[in-house]
Amino acid sequence: MPHIDLKNDLPGIRSALAFSPQTAEPLGQLAEILLRSNEGLTRAERELIATYVSYLNDCFYCHHSHGEIACIYLDGNSQLVEQVRKDFNKAAISEKLKSLLAIAAKVQQGGKFVTETHIEKAKQNGATDRDIHDTILIAAAFCMFNRYVDGLATNTPKDMSSYPLRAKQVAERGYGNHMYTEKQPTQTI
Amino acid sequence: MPHIDLKNDLPGIRSALAFSPQTAEPLGQLAEILLRSNEGLTRAERELIATYVSYLNDCFYCHHSHGEIACIYLDGNSQLVEQVRKDFNKAAISEKLKSLLAIAAKVQQGGKFVTETHIEKAKQNGATDRDIHDTILIAAAFCMFNRYVDGLATNTPKDMSSYPLRAKQVAERGYGNHMYTEKQPTQTI
Repeated sequence: MPHIDLKNDLPGIRSALAFSPQTAEPLGQLAEILLRSNEGLTRAERELIATYVSYLNDCFYCHHSHGEIACIYLDGNSQLVEQVRKDFNKAAISEKLKSLLAIAAKVQQGGKFVTETHIEKAKQNGATDRDIHDTILIAAAFCMFNRYVDGLATNTPKDMSSYPLRAKQVAERGYGNHMYTEKQPTQTI
Repeated sequence: MPHIDLKNDLPGIRSALAFSPQTAEPLGQLAEILLRSNEGLTRAERELIATYVSYLNDCFYCHHSHGEIACIYLDGNSQLVEQVRKDFNKAAISEKLKSLLAIAAKVQQGGKFVTETHIEKAKQNGATDRDIHDTILIAAAFCMFNRYVDGLATNTPKDMSSYPLRAKQVAERGYGNHMYTEKQPTQTI
């Protein structure tokens, strides 16, 4: 049960966004730019970074939500998403993404854990300054989103079939205000 | 020296915002709402929460920047700001703010560290659901801002006189795009 009366029964971050639409707006815009930009990193790569950081932060709602969205962009390859969570070094992903996930893991611990060595490796693997910037900000943003979701003890759906349904909506429509103005995911959007 | 070429010589988060204006916009809007809302918590209380979390995250740039802004709202009482950093339980602040700072400290560790006991204490001390929500989101947001600043290894001004100058600008003009479009703080604004 949430720590405060959020005045709705939406799951996870959606309940917090509905409680506070004034902060929901910039939070949604930030997610939209960070996770759906087509500049540099792909949407799948961006969602994998979000999933991995959320997994490290032990945020069940977020790592399942974003894992399912990543899965859609990866043509349903849920095994790859799971491999990134558990040990990305063994995943069938580029060396560039591996070195960016290593940076994301350091950001999750704290900004100062990122060293010149991590950055150099990412650059050697083809990461641009924009890729590195976006990785650091995605990782940092999910250290916020995860704390927002779990700090309020928002409701976490136990029915795992709701995650892919919601993921489909987000993949199609992005992180707009349907996130908190619509009650339930439907299959007929 | 920053880990990537930020293409400007602004200090701290301002250099990252200038590098990426598309993400700077929602980040600025979020800071504006969270730190300058007049609903519930005062601006001084909001800046003290931001300062304390940034201090716990060992983000020199952020805890000095926001500490100076808090100081302005507290009529120059820098000793109070320092006492909040070091041991807020001994500071001359309300019991309500003490219990909210205790929640912020837990959010800094991770969302799940916030327990029903922390929430109950804050409510007993007069905190509303909105106050608790805002405290959790301010603390979570600074876990992002701090990681953004230090994860990129942005430049930290060593000249401590620049912090109060900048703080004056923010206290007067808020967290708008002057944060990253104007080169230096001036005394003549």
